[in-house]
Amino acid sequence: MFINSNFDGGNIRCLTCENPADIQLQINKDHNSDFYQWFYFRLSGAQGKNCSLKIINAADASYVEGWQGYQAVASYDKVFWFRVDSSYRDGIFQIDHKPEFQSVYYAYFAPYSMERYGDFIGNVILDPKVQLDTLGKTLDGQDLDQLIISNPAISGRPDADKKKIWINARQHPGETMASWWIEGFVKRLLDENDSISRALLEQAIFYVVPNMNPDGSRRGHLRTNALGVNLNREWLTPTLEKSPEVYFVRQKMHKIGVDFCLDVHGDEALPYNFIAGAQGIPSWNEQLAALQDRFAKTLMQVNPDFQMEKGYPVSKPGQANMTVCTNYIAETFNCLALTLEMPFKDTIETPNPAQGWSPERSAKLGASCLDAVCQIVADLR
Amino acid sequence: MFINSNFDGGNIRCLTCENPADIQLQINKDHNSDFYQWFYFRLSGAQGKNCSLKIINAADASYVEGWQGYQAVASYDKVFWFRVDSSYRDGIFQIDHKPEFQSVYYAYFAPYSMERYGDFIGNVILDPKVQLDTLGKTLDGQDLDQLIISNPAISGRPDADKKKIWINARQHPGETMASWWIEGFVKRLLDENDSISRALLEQAIFYVVPNMNPDGSRRGHLRTNALGVNLNREWLTPTLEKSPEVYFVRQKMHKIGVDFCLDVHGDEALPYNFIAGAQGIPSWNEQLAALQDRFAKTLMQVNPDFQMEKGYPVSKPGQANMTVCTNYIAETFNCLALTLEMPFKDTIETPNPAQGWSPERSAKLGASCLDAVCQIVADLR
Amino acid sequence: MFINSNFDGGNIRCLTCENPADIQLQINKDHNSDFYQWFYFRLSGAQGKNCSLKIINAADASYVEGWQGYQAVASYDKVFWFRVDSSYRDGIFQIDHKPEFQSVYYAYFAPYSMERYGDFIGNVILDPKVQLDTLGKTLDGQDLDQLIISNPAISGRPDADKKKIWINARQHPGETMASWWIEGFVKRLLDENDSISRALLEQAIFYVVPNMNPDGSRRGHLRTNALGVNLNREWLTPTLEKSPEVYFVRQKMHKIGVDFCLDVHGDEALPYNFIAGAQGIPSWNEQLAALQDRFAKTLMQVNPDFQMEKGYPVSKPGQANMTVCTNYIAETFNCLALTLEMPFKDTIETPNPAQGWSPERSAKLGASCLDAVCQIVADLR
Amino acid sequence: MFINSNFDGGNIRCLTCENPADIQLQINKDHNSDFYQWFYFRLSGAQGKNCSLKIINAADASYVEGWQGYQAVASYDKVFWFRVDSSYRDGIFQIDHKPEFQSVYYAYFAPYSMERYGDFIGNVILDPKVQLDTLGKTLDGQDLDQLIISNPAISGRPDADKKKIWINARQHPGETMASWWIEGFVKRLLDENDSISRALLEQAIFYVVPNMNPDGSRRGHLRTNALGVNLNREWLTPTLEKSPEVYFVRQKMHKIGVDFCLDVHGDEALPYNFIAGAQGIPSWNEQLAALQDRFAKTLMQVNPDFQMEKGYPVSKPGQANMTVCTNYIAETFNCLALTLEMPFKDTIETPNPAQGWSPERSAKLGASCLDAVCQIVADLR
Repeated sequence: MFINSNFDGGNIRCLTCENPADIQLQINKDHNSDFYQWFYFRLSGAQGKNCSLKIINAADASYVEGWQGYQAVASYDKVFWFRVDSSYRDGIFQIDHKPEFQSVYYAYFAPYSMERYGDFIGNVILDPKVQLDTLGKTLDGQDLDQLIISNPAISGRPDADKKKIWINARQHPGETMASWWIEGFVKRLLDENDSISRALLEQAIFYVVPNMNPDGSRRGHLRTNALGVNLNREWLTPTLEKSPEVYFVRQKMHKIGVDFCLDVHGDEALPYNFIAGAQGIPSWNEQLAALQDRFAKTLMQVNPDFQMEKGYPVSKPGQANMTVCTNYIAETFNCLALTLEMPFKDTIETPNPAQGWSPERSAKLGASCLDAVCQIVADLR
Repeated sequence: MFINSNFDGGNIRCLTCENPADIQLQINKDHNSDFYQWFYFRLSGAQGKNCSLKIINAADASYVEGWQGYQAVASYDKVFWFRVDSSYRDGIFQIDHKPEFQSVYYAYFAPYSMERYGDFIGNVILDPKVQLDTLGKTLDGQDLDQLIISNPAISGRPDADKKKIWINARQHPGETMASWWIEGFVKRLLDENDSISRALLEQAIFYVVPNMNPDGSRRGHLRTNALGVNLNREWLTPTLEKSPEVYFVRQKMHKIGVDFCLDVHGDEALPYNFIAGAQGIPSWNEQLAALQDRFAKTLMQVNPDFQMEKGYPVSKPGQANMTVCTNYIAETFNCLALTLEMPFKDTIETPNPAQGWSPERSAKLGASCLDAVCQIVADLR
Repeated sequence: MFINSNFDGGNIRCLTCENPADIQLQINKDHNSDFYQWFYFRLSGAQGKNCSLKIINAADASYVEGWQGYQAVASYDKVFWFRVDSSYRDGIFQIDHKPEFQSVYYAYFAPYSMERYGDFIGNVILDPKVQLDTLGKTLDGQDLDQLIISNPAISGRPDADKKKIWINARQHPGETMASWWIEGFVKRLLDENDSISRALLEQAIFYVVPNMNPDGSRRGHLRTNALGVNLNREWLTPTLEKSPEVYFVRQKMHKIGVDFCLDVHGDEALPYNFIAGAQGIPSWNEQLAALQDRFAKTLMQVNPDFQMEKGYPVSKPGQANMTVCTNYIAETFNCLALTLEMPFKDTIETPNPAQGWSPERSAKLGASCLDAVCQIVADLR
Repeated sequence: MFINSNFDGGNIRCLTCENPADIQLQINKDHNSDFYQWFYFRLSGAQGKNCSLKIINAADASYVEGWQGYQAVASYDKVFWFRVDSSYRDGIFQIDHKPEFQSVYYAYFAPYSMERYGDFIGNVILDPKVQLDTLGKTLDGQDLDQLIISNPAISGRPDADKKKIWINARQHPGETMASWWIEGFVKRLLDENDSISRALLEQAIFYVVPNMNPDGSRRGHLRTNALGVNLNREWLTPTLEKSPEVYFVRQKMHKIGVDFCLDVHGDEALPYNFIAGAQGIPSWNEQLAALQDRFAKTLMQVNPDFQMEKGYPVSKPGQANMTVCTNYIAETFNCLALTLEMPFKDTIETPNPAQGWSPERSAKLGASCLDAVCQIVADLR
């Protein structure tokens, strides 16, 4: 038997894998940081064996409540990811599984490799509605790409009159559902037979950063970039040295302007899809509250996997953490900015036991968000 | 040069095709009837020639206002259908086109063959959520199929407590957009990753007749069955001899019950998607009006190709034609029943000049209708 | 339970289908003819029932030895065709099958509808290497299409110096394997990454008639056209009245010339793939014998489903039936002409019990024939 | 403008990319080695600009004759790779190209990422004819995988009586055509409708190592593993420390036995497909010569992209370099062993100017090799 994580986005350290009943593993911390919870590795040679895979440093992972009620995902073909029996007890997260094939992958959530990301970019830039802008270089020397999506052909409206809508994903690299979400969102937006997408592109230009954190993604990090920096605490004072990813995006935002921003994330603990707003910023007002409410209600209506009851506690007036993307943008541009959170687990009200929350459902939520944007686009500015 | 319509759903009579600039054609009447407007034929040997194809009996077609502002569809590969320059003048409907290939098909709308229908049925019955019930035989000896779609696995609710939702399409065989709509509707309903579809199947069972009129479809009719009977005027007193298609469906409705019925059509004249309700039936009431309004508003919201301003004049109270499917069902089962109409032309507010109203957009409208059903399903009974 | 054959290529008459254990059926004769053996129908409403389907007029079918050791094909989705238990006893051909779904199709061989044929033509004409020539009209008013495949781009050789290679299929409409063969042959020939196809198109132009008998195909005939005429006995004196299909093709052959002709068929009785040559024609010679031998040996080498031991008895010198395509062409054009026969059953030496001889294998044999043609093309003239 | 090679298999160092007309680049040497020639990078931000990309250390690359007459490959979508104008002059290899999109990739040959490799393995292990054996770990901690392909179902022959056929690819990681070849070879071998594949699996078991050098592949090396070792000079005395890849494969060969081995490569200089045999080994004999000749002649016949005239000089008797895979295996197992070489350029006799030698053609050559193996399999032992 072999354990291998030496691939794009992989993360595990194998202490011992001689006995199928006692495979001992540790998750590596993000480089230069104490964050860890993302794992992704391959087990080979275990076909037909009852395997117990134990993550022995689970108790000190970043979100220990994330292990409660969580089932790991597995795949033989790297395409279909299913849930496997998992438990958290005495500080150990344990997967019990009898693989049907000699090679099986386990992960915290269905991975989304940088190779797939490159294929996605390569595919969408062929669409004449898409323009690519590489904003700069990451610390590991990767490109920070932005897709600019507009459709001059279907609208006489000048670009200057269109709303500027920003979509960011994968600030936290371990939240791979955000990449599946992006695929669903962008593919529908480019579909010329979709009347919502056509209506949106008559009124808005989309600035999409599909992956804010390529370095963390390729390194198999949970939350940080190549230097161990949590990008979603860098929006007030990003630097080229520590957080060029935020620096470049923010710079372009100031150049272009922002009328709405959606920052796409996953939450380790909560078994819900939900949004978090910028209620705690100084300039919060009724209009923003109304827009946010309309966005959420539409999304809930078109996609029952989304809900409005559960979520994060709302910041008190004036107490927002301004280093966070959503708060920074809402305050700076005086616009609606939202954080969208998807579960690593499953949605508790609309469960799918076989797959839990999945790439397919993430993509559908991404597509559904276009309906929600469409309901507010006219009033964004 | 050759003109050929001897295939599944074909309809034309060629008077002369020796001169590309003066190809003279007639549409055949539905067998045993005066209805005609559907055409579908192939022109071969005309690559690179400026062709004028003239339908010389257009003035007496069933819906002469349908020719105004209408562009015919064409295809080389029978997959992608595009609009070609067309005009109606002095009683002649004329297509002017220079084909890029030696074989080109022209039609009134993108055809949907009985072969494709058979492939569709063959494909969907493999899904365990689908049960096929062949209700009986048509006059030409074809099967009248019904798909029963339910998902016991995701709901503890007994079938008896679920709403019975009926979908009928292609009563009028020339309205092929109804078949494309069905594909969009059924495919989405069967998608287990779609949260709307899952929510619906927890609450309802769907009884879908994808093609109410196989004989007219294969014969290339506009509005009638093998005997020249307009099925949508047969709901009060259908007979096995004249209208077995309606007879069988109605019989099963009485056995199963109906909580909601959507009857899917195309309209030759109006460049809009719209619904027609059963306002003229004796038992019309506020509750039905509210449900209908909610259905329409939801559909308009999720799919801007649909609108609520334009449509048929509303029948006065008590003046409904009870031989029509929607009126008969609404009155008999005291439930919401709607006729959905799609254009042969294009939607005037959300146009797509290259393709006009199309198979792709019909399918999307079908998928969108699930959102609208979902907003009313809980209140149907 | 219902039996239905009212579709493209269907053929059956149902005497009784009330008792699953005793479904009695008759195959219809070809119109105006005594030929019959092709059947193709749908059974609905029999899910989970042990069905015995009895063709009670099997004893007088055209090739009674065809029933021996033959298993009928079935399909639920019209895509995957598998063999079902069948037997021939006391003059009755009986299928014993318990369908897994409410709709199942049975046939003599995997059908190939005229709709699929139309889709195939529509698809291949998009390739710039393909030119369509509609040679004329059939008696039922269908088009008789020819594909002319050449590639000026890859060869400096003038067309006049290229060999003229003719491929005919489906003279006998019940031999649907010939259509699957055509798909395999043409698709490979058009593949610009295939070095055999490129080599061939440097040296030859292909004149392909994918379906010599559209009328018999759509009517569900075994061997004849709309008038009950066996086209493969019409090559000496075809007429526009009785056999326009042969008339048009022959006319074009005389205009263009023929350096090699392959006529593609299926054989009801023999469980082998084999070729039949024109040894009985007056002008048969050593060179033709050598070419034929090289063709066959190459084909056997690249595709072990083909063999050279079993086949038809070879005609004695001078005793060839000159009304047959292959003999007529070989003699008239003094060229190699071959009849290729595929089994309805299976290849006895290389069996695949689940599917028997199949569309997939027919297509592969078609592709393999390009290898065989490539070995003789330089010496054809 | 940005140059980026920080991805799976990437290799370039950018000296300057400020002026499109003078982009200066260097290829990095293989780690711990002097080999270099493989390059693979992305240029972004250059849409519509006339770019000159200069590899200024081309003169000292491993195979300087490789630059003569060579055109680099490029792709926008990472799927379709086409050739771009390239020249070698004064020690500089220069690409002149005006990109049509903001992102374009350039490479020495169409890359084949380790991600794609993982997807390929994941896909094929689902086939019941495939068994995966992970032979061990590479120095970078990746898995060294082997596919064992057999089909007990179609043969009564015991495994012990079957020939053992070994296929190795990518000893030299920069020769990515070997991976495309493997896809073509394995996919055809698994096709149950292919009569050659069925015939082979009745007589043989295949031991396939699709990638002998995962570390070099991911690092973007030309010829060596993570330690800079050329694996194809390690077969006499491989060690776990320096060349575990060879050590593990050789160990399994000794356990299983070898009746035939094909080692798949690419050649930088020669514009031909050819094989190199083991003529220089002590035990070379007539039988091996005859088998090799039959293999080559069959391959040339079924795939004109292969030829037998041009290739490497044949070693004199007894002068074979026994550290090379083919020689070591031929001598040790007294069996046929061949090196197959494909071009980086194009085949000079059967050129395809748009793409040159390509993934598609490599895959077809892989598929064709099954024909050649089939002609010798019975006589291998």
